[in-house]
Amino acid sequence: MATAALIGIDWGTTSFRAYRIDSAGASLETREAAAGILSVRDGDFGRVLGREIGDWLQAEPEVPVVASGMITSRQGWVEVPYCACPAGSAQIAGALMRHPTRPTLHFVPGLALIGDDGVPDVIRGEETQIIGEIGDHPGRHLLVLPGTHSKWALAENGVISWFATFMTGEVFAVLKEHSILGRLMQGEADDHAAFERGLAYARSGQGGLLKRLFSARTLGLFDRLPATGVASYLSGLLIGSEIEEALGCLEVAPEAEIRVIGASRLAWRYRGALAARNLRVRPARDDAGARGQFLIARAAGLIG
Amino acid sequence: MATAALIGIDWGTTSFRAYRIDSAGASLETREAAAGILSVRDGDFGRVLGREIGDWLQAEPEVPVVASGMITSRQGWVEVPYCACPAGSAQIAGALMRHPTRPTLHFVPGLALIGDDGVPDVIRGEETQIIGEIGDHPGRHLLVLPGTHSKWALAENGVISWFATFMTGEVFAVLKEHSILGRLMQGEADDHAAFERGLAYARSGQGGLLKRLFSARTLGLFDRLPATGVASYLSGLLIGSEIEEALGCLEVAPEAEIRVIGASRLAWRYRGALAARNLRVRPARDDAGARGQFLIARAAGLIG
Repeated sequence: MATAALIGIDWGTTSFRAYRIDSAGASLETREAAAGILSVRDGDFGRVLGREIGDWLQAEPEVPVVASGMITSRQGWVEVPYCACPAGSAQIAGALMRHPTRPTLHFVPGLALIGDDGVPDVIRGEETQIIGEIGDHPGRHLLVLPGTHSKWALAENGVISWFATFMTGEVFAVLKEHSILGRLMQGEADDHAAFERGLAYARSGQGGLLKRLFSARTLGLFDRLPATGVASYLSGLLIGSEIEEALGCLEVAPEAEIRVIGASRLAWRYRGALAARNLRVRPARDDAGARGQFLIARAAGLIG
Repeated sequence: MATAALIGIDWGTTSFRAYRIDSAGASLETREAAAGILSVRDGDFGRVLGREIGDWLQAEPEVPVVASGMITSRQGWVEVPYCACPAGSAQIAGALMRHPTRPTLHFVPGLALIGDDGVPDVIRGEETQIIGEIGDHPGRHLLVLPGTHSKWALAENGVISWFATFMTGEVFAVLKEHSILGRLMQGEADDHAAFERGLAYARSGQGGLLKRLFSARTLGLFDRLPATGVASYLSGLLIGSEIEEALGCLEVAPEAEIRVIGASRLAWRYRGALAARNLRVRPARDDAGARGQFLIARAAGLIG
């Protein structure tokens, strides 16, 4: 097998991903498992690491290993203090935490930002993907990372200068599973027309989200929305609301391109929502996580 | 016992209330039970009615009976079509549905409104409380009815001209019970300072609700909010957001008075939130429901 220069681990709440990365930053091999930190018993992260990539570690014991994501949180293996934003690969590399185990692990810190309103915001894991996506490209880049807690970020000349968290995915999930809106939903099918109606109502109409949410009930009551479309409508309403909120925080030039990171169905929904808002969507690289670990490890001098 | 001129029933999703009302509209006697329509088995509403107030009905079989609330919905005893808004006691009285049982019941319709944005909104039960609160008072009245689905309404010269629903209570409940924010909460104590901080952040700060919700997590993470205060903070953030949304739908003069209907702890929180926003809160009568049933029954000619 080709020689690796780095092993990168993206260890989140619900999933575990590992990459063997060569000296040019290319992924040689990827492994993925439903072994997120919530599934690890008794905090025995070492055992899970051995189970998932013990053969890699044994075959190339001298290769440095970096780990990013919720594995660096209070609920993870080692709590790594947040690195202050703005931060680029150099600042993040300078705040890596070396964990004296075999193998030695280099944990990547998350980022913290105190907003203009004095309220803190945080990311853990996404900073690595953002660094991987923007690399050392000059200029201003706007990025969206959809998920349970969706993140928007701004990077300027390789440095993450701003980010914000939106609880969109979690609000959708709890309303779908536990609210009266969920009880109205029939089926899981993607209803594109209903999704677009939700998007449209998010950027027009009276009131804000607490008022608009009730439309998911009344439109059905008045036979203006099929029960099979309520879930898609609610998804459009929430994603559309997030986009309006985020644009309200930023100055986005009409010609600006927005990069949506991820290949999930949810990421595709965001791309469609941005395009429907006449915003330019730029394809993001599909190896942003591994690429970010490579760039951070290189900035830390871990790669020769 | 004093002679009743009317029996009024306010039968909601989770509670049952009944009033014996005299010919001047005063409540002679009130009964309350946790016998909402969701608790009625096999649709046997007649049995529950007999159990709760059978003695009243037997003692005064000639007294007319009106019923309002979710008992008139598709999930209730008889589905009564919505009455179109604007509507006052005369319009509502004209749309009462007589149900040919023993005793004959007169069901009060809910109201439907198609908003300026073309999206429908509905109330069932609150219309009766609003009519009871405003009576035939001339002028413009702004009312708030806190609850799982909070309602704001505008009444002009005895006619309900506008209303809107905000899913505030339900969003709070599902986030508290099922989200990461709920897992951060310790205890149920009222933390007044945390509630006020939530209120303040709802009317300042960046973004909208989806972004601001995350502050309930990060403030705790940075030791700026005690875990015992997270529930109160979230309550303040949501109620404050509702107030901003509602004020955005309306033209509220600085000297306007807002009536908050209800004596629940939640209603008191709304009063505090409005006062903290420098809005004038006017005490509402505590018998608005019974009074509304009386006024509607009188307009329908049911009371001699």
